[in-house]
Amino acid sequence: MSLKNICVVVTARPSYSRIKTALTAIKNHPQLNLLLVVAASALLDRYGTAVKYIEEDGFKIDAKVFNVLEGENLTAQAKTTGLGIIELASVFEQLKPDAVVTVADRFETMSTAIAASYMNLPLIHIQGGEVTGNIDEKVRHAITKLADLHLVATEKAKERVIKMGEDPNMVFNTGCPSIDLADMVLKNPKIDFDLFKQYGGVGKIKNWEQGYLVVLQHPVTTEYQKSRVQIEETLHAIYELNIPTFWFWPNVDAGSDGTSKGIRSFRENHNIDHIHFFKNMEGKDFLKLLYNSKCLIGNSSAGIRECSYLGVPVVNIGSRQSGRERGQNIVDVEHNRDKIKGAINQAISMVRKHDDIYGDGQSGDEIAQKIAQIQIGYTKRLTY
Amino acid sequence: MSLKNICVVVTARPSYSRIKTALTAIKNHPQLNLLLVVAASALLDRYGTAVKYIEEDGFKIDAKVFNVLEGENLTAQAKTTGLGIIELASVFEQLKPDAVVTVADRFETMSTAIAASYMNLPLIHIQGGEVTGNIDEKVRHAITKLADLHLVATEKAKERVIKMGEDPNMVFNTGCPSIDLADMVLKNPKIDFDLFKQYGGVGKIKNWEQGYLVVLQHPVTTEYQKSRVQIEETLHAIYELNIPTFWFWPNVDAGSDGTSKGIRSFRENHNIDHIHFFKNMEGKDFLKLLYNSKCLIGNSSAGIRECSYLGVPVVNIGSRQSGRERGQNIVDVEHNRDKIKGAINQAISMVRKHDDIYGDGQSGDEIAQKIAQIQIGYTKRLTY
Amino acid sequence: MSLKNICVVVTARPSYSRIKTALTAIKNHPQLNLLLVVAASALLDRYGTAVKYIEEDGFKIDAKVFNVLEGENLTAQAKTTGLGIIELASVFEQLKPDAVVTVADRFETMSTAIAASYMNLPLIHIQGGEVTGNIDEKVRHAITKLADLHLVATEKAKERVIKMGEDPNMVFNTGCPSIDLADMVLKNPKIDFDLFKQYGGVGKIKNWEQGYLVVLQHPVTTEYQKSRVQIEETLHAIYELNIPTFWFWPNVDAGSDGTSKGIRSFRENHNIDHIHFFKNMEGKDFLKLLYNSKCLIGNSSAGIRECSYLGVPVVNIGSRQSGRERGQNIVDVEHNRDKIKGAINQAISMVRKHDDIYGDGQSGDEIAQKIAQIQIGYTKRLTY
Amino acid sequence: MSLKNICVVVTARPSYSRIKTALTAIKNHPQLNLLLVVAASALLDRYGTAVKYIEEDGFKIDAKVFNVLEGENLTAQAKTTGLGIIELASVFEQLKPDAVVTVADRFETMSTAIAASYMNLPLIHIQGGEVTGNIDEKVRHAITKLADLHLVATEKAKERVIKMGEDPNMVFNTGCPSIDLADMVLKNPKIDFDLFKQYGGVGKIKNWEQGYLVVLQHPVTTEYQKSRVQIEETLHAIYELNIPTFWFWPNVDAGSDGTSKGIRSFRENHNIDHIHFFKNMEGKDFLKLLYNSKCLIGNSSAGIRECSYLGVPVVNIGSRQSGRERGQNIVDVEHNRDKIKGAINQAISMVRKHDDIYGDGQSGDEIAQKIAQIQIGYTKRLTY
Repeated sequence: MSLKNICVVVTARPSYSRIKTALTAIKNHPQLNLLLVVAASALLDRYGTAVKYIEEDGFKIDAKVFNVLEGENLTAQAKTTGLGIIELASVFEQLKPDAVVTVADRFETMSTAIAASYMNLPLIHIQGGEVTGNIDEKVRHAITKLADLHLVATEKAKERVIKMGEDPNMVFNTGCPSIDLADMVLKNPKIDFDLFKQYGGVGKIKNWEQGYLVVLQHPVTTEYQKSRVQIEETLHAIYELNIPTFWFWPNVDAGSDGTSKGIRSFRENHNIDHIHFFKNMEGKDFLKLLYNSKCLIGNSSAGIRECSYLGVPVVNIGSRQSGRERGQNIVDVEHNRDKIKGAINQAISMVRKHDDIYGDGQSGDEIAQKIAQIQIGYTKRLTY
Repeated sequence: MSLKNICVVVTARPSYSRIKTALTAIKNHPQLNLLLVVAASALLDRYGTAVKYIEEDGFKIDAKVFNVLEGENLTAQAKTTGLGIIELASVFEQLKPDAVVTVADRFETMSTAIAASYMNLPLIHIQGGEVTGNIDEKVRHAITKLADLHLVATEKAKERVIKMGEDPNMVFNTGCPSIDLADMVLKNPKIDFDLFKQYGGVGKIKNWEQGYLVVLQHPVTTEYQKSRVQIEETLHAIYELNIPTFWFWPNVDAGSDGTSKGIRSFRENHNIDHIHFFKNMEGKDFLKLLYNSKCLIGNSSAGIRECSYLGVPVVNIGSRQSGRERGQNIVDVEHNRDKIKGAINQAISMVRKHDDIYGDGQSGDEIAQKIAQIQIGYTKRLTY
Repeated sequence: MSLKNICVVVTARPSYSRIKTALTAIKNHPQLNLLLVVAASALLDRYGTAVKYIEEDGFKIDAKVFNVLEGENLTAQAKTTGLGIIELASVFEQLKPDAVVTVADRFETMSTAIAASYMNLPLIHIQGGEVTGNIDEKVRHAITKLADLHLVATEKAKERVIKMGEDPNMVFNTGCPSIDLADMVLKNPKIDFDLFKQYGGVGKIKNWEQGYLVVLQHPVTTEYQKSRVQIEETLHAIYELNIPTFWFWPNVDAGSDGTSKGIRSFRENHNIDHIHFFKNMEGKDFLKLLYNSKCLIGNSSAGIRECSYLGVPVVNIGSRQSGRERGQNIVDVEHNRDKIKGAINQAISMVRKHDDIYGDGQSGDEIAQKIAQIQIGYTKRLTY
Repeated sequence: MSLKNICVVVTARPSYSRIKTALTAIKNHPQLNLLLVVAASALLDRYGTAVKYIEEDGFKIDAKVFNVLEGENLTAQAKTTGLGIIELASVFEQLKPDAVVTVADRFETMSTAIAASYMNLPLIHIQGGEVTGNIDEKVRHAITKLADLHLVATEKAKERVIKMGEDPNMVFNTGCPSIDLADMVLKNPKIDFDLFKQYGGVGKIKNWEQGYLVVLQHPVTTEYQKSRVQIEETLHAIYELNIPTFWFWPNVDAGSDGTSKGIRSFRENHNIDHIHFFKNMEGKDFLKLLYNSKCLIGNSSAGIRECSYLGVPVVNIGSRQSGRERGQNIVDVEHNRDKIKGAINQAISMVRKHDDIYGDGQSGDEIAQKIAQIQIGYTKRLTY
């Protein structure tokens, strides 16, 4: 029997981390052949290119797609997506996959979904059916309507996808592969690498071993002009708490320039020796850093997913994750420096509890198995 | 109070005919200002450019978008859509509309939906919630998930859109504006123009006034390699029946080259003096031609919509309209010349009945009113 | 020693025919490795796709680039070129050639020239330095200024390229590889294939073996709106002469729709049983057909190049080839049916003479040798 | 008589400064109507958007083109150019200018040249005929071959353009409009604005009024991987000299990330309190700053042009300006910190001399007059 050629398109560094165990499982599955395409911000140095990690992890990259438009506005996001379709159509024409996998809900993943479905290639969507604020909400459900096989991360997500009119035989709760990594980390959580040698960054942090915070706050595209004001509230809160802090630069969304500018300007004008800035960190190392932290602050989905499994307290700021299912580790708070400070103090004193709403640590294997087993077509019809 | 600037993007000649009364109603509404963008195949001479009709109808075109890739494959459809996003993003940046209207479910309408929703412009979708075969099915429901206001054409469509998780307060059954035209024609159905002087075309048809057939058959994108075989079955059926026939060239979908080639080749090799070929016809004239015909043959949505209102019998061939709600005027048949002949004979002898499942003839006005009344945002969330 | 990877981009069927012996020589050269990219109209069925011939000739296609915008205007030509750059940049990123070859002066060859030179890839231009009317004139010399190695077809062309400020050490007269084919045909000129079985086409031509004409007339882009009027003059001339004629469809330039329409409409309205229409013909077969014809009529460069070597009389109509060096086989004439008739009669009665201004039949080998021998960089400076 | 609509495309902040007096002269000319398009890096905040200055100067922007691809490689430059063509074609289709003006030789100006010439719009090129290193050299001369009217800045440039085969009646030495600004500054050279209030920037510079250096060093695209090493040599030289210095961030060329990174990293690791960093400065203010400086260091063309007119000494580093005509104010030096230090000391002690090889301060008016007077077509032919 010939192998099924499965093309996975990775468009951002965090998407790679999240999907990594599934990539490994597809690569190793006896009936599957992995075709890997790296695109968009995953190729950009400015946001911590994923290419280095991907190659170090032993994957071969079959095609690269440079399609990110520069510019501090939503127009650039739309055009990036349009250019992505044009280029991915050529890539699919060249690679001739039997099915295409698109991950989650970043704006530019729509390129993958459209190019594949318009070319009559069966489309597999990972992590559909969740609910959040943001343009992600529209993108995620639109991709559900273009996809032929749905591998979701929670029971509620499965229910929602079926409710939206998808064939129940094509919807499976495989859990989220990001939890696989969290599971490995949970079994060996020690920080066994040199943070600064390995990941550089800037800052003069001291005595972090006695306890530290981690911050990761992305701009919110439906509110992009507010991104600078929003990041400043968090900056002030962290500044005033004066606890050693590791801060990660945000991703490439519109408004990230506002976020970046806010951070850069704050650094020029305040003495923030207790904050160290990283550009990025390999997925497993990042989870170890989280596990050993006092809490995570920001609006990353890692707070909702991996941290719930790891039992790490999270201060979740603003609307970006609103609507997403969450464990008991979350303290929600708005963009207000005093409330953020209060929430951090509350989070730090929480009792830690492990939660597995987003998976049991075997998601990568389950994803590969479903892809291998299920016969996937490229036509479908609403169930009602 | 300042006017709401409503940008409507028309991407194909038939879409223009279908939406025309709504355009007029928006243009004339005291609270609305119409911004009209003409794009894609609506600009191509080869398929009967809509520009001439649009300008003759008194509309001003605010921007033109040339984005159709040439080529006999689905890759070109994907790239056309990608290029459409890139260009429409610039157009929206220039026109700065308060809301954007996208019509129905042709593949390239996704360009409008993505450019608008990514740029935080409220998106209004007309004719969502219907069910068909084809890539249209995926496109239509994906656009529903990107749209903020849904103006659908039937009660069942309304139910489905709400079931898919849309806010019931943002879903209205306004009927299909194509029925408005049918309503006008019903009141004055006489063919009051010179078919050949006005629309040219080729052929040596005679005695058509004693009764004639009309054929309009588009390629089906999910089966595009079969388009030539499929058109040949219809050609043979019409050839053998030897009844005067008006035949319309298909639209620009992938595979239309297969369809066109089939027709061209058949013409070279058969004596088909009883068939006259038209490239296109102004909407109202087309409906008059249909009303006075023995029946319509093919897979056009006009058979399902306008013909049900007009009570014209229709032989609907193949999968393109499968799933769509239909009146009693339809005889469904597969791609087989003998069965097509049988179905035509059955249709011709039908008793004609008027049906209004697709609207009551006031749809254009209702659409403009809803757009003017409803406060539309650009964020939303699944209702479950 | 490692092979030099030489990427040749072919963008049209006639370009392929013209460059074919050079492709073979590059492929067979012990120091070179051929990377073949097929793009633009070379991939379009409507104009006679080159892919079939290329594969039958034993070449492997390393990448395909679908970039032709549809539309009857110059805007589409500009956009086709822009899209070509975007896609070829990705192709070059993937193939990583040591040098790139671009052929002649069609508008879309600029895509190759810009993508290569902007990416610091040494650019080799074949057939620079000639002079004509048309946009080709601008394109050709602009590419000369982007190219690092110039392999031209005549001594005068060599002089001109050097005069334009190029390093004389990087300019070589290798002749035109189209003459290589003409040379083979000259040694064996018999029509040894069945024209109609092999190439189909439409028409009812009879008794062509007693003598026939060949017509190949392209639209002229700087006069594109006149293309329909221009083709009609030629159609009338041929119609009135009533000599058996083989007529070839034009290429994909803006205005070809005008040309095509003119032909199609003429066929509907006149009895032209003595004309047979072909879409295209394999290069060698086409030259055999020319060799055995009474004369070639139109504005194809084959009239100037191959026919001068073959000694076939040519009626060259209009401005498209004006300025190009020519042998004694040419009768120039303007777009006027009576003058065209006169010129054809004059051409038919000419004494045939062989001419080798465009090469001696060894051009393909010479091109491959120069590419292998010359050290090519990607920086240069005007010599004055 | 109706006005000639002249469309000028500005693609970068420095290009705007350079062309500004010509824009004013076109705007004010009784026979001309200015259509202004702002594109590419001129729209990007990261490099100091030109939009603010343009609007403050009283110009209306008729279209904006967002086309810069992000990424640290030459592929992005090629794609930016391709996307520029696609979008400018739509802009020209909309604006319907009578002629298009493209300025100088940045890579993305090729978009303007190709879109205009392919659409049969007469193309006017400002500042052709100069000689430099870099990809600019290829771009500049290629645009000369696409352009119909050449308005060059020096006598030698005029000679070269004619030698390249252009019609001498279409080549005029109008001087460089950047000198117009220099001329105004020469008449009133006092720094009459608050540097820091007006232009912000970062640094702790003191006592600069007693004498200061200015640095502006761009990456060189044909050597882009070396850009970080090259900037570090200059950084070390300036660091060691310890003279108050105003340093300007580089433009958007490939490799600017290398340059930026070099600067950013140096700042983290060295105490450089005597350097102040600016992002950008309005043209006239920049020239005043230069006039009052000890010398300019780097590879900006302002050193060659404006500084020769102003008599300001310049240390010109590396290959970027090699080949360009220069006055006596230049000390050329390679990328070596010790040699740079030596050259700065030599420059500081020079006797200042005014030079007018690049114009006499009336260039803007002369450009507008030529555009108004000369009848420009869109076809041409090599003169030999």
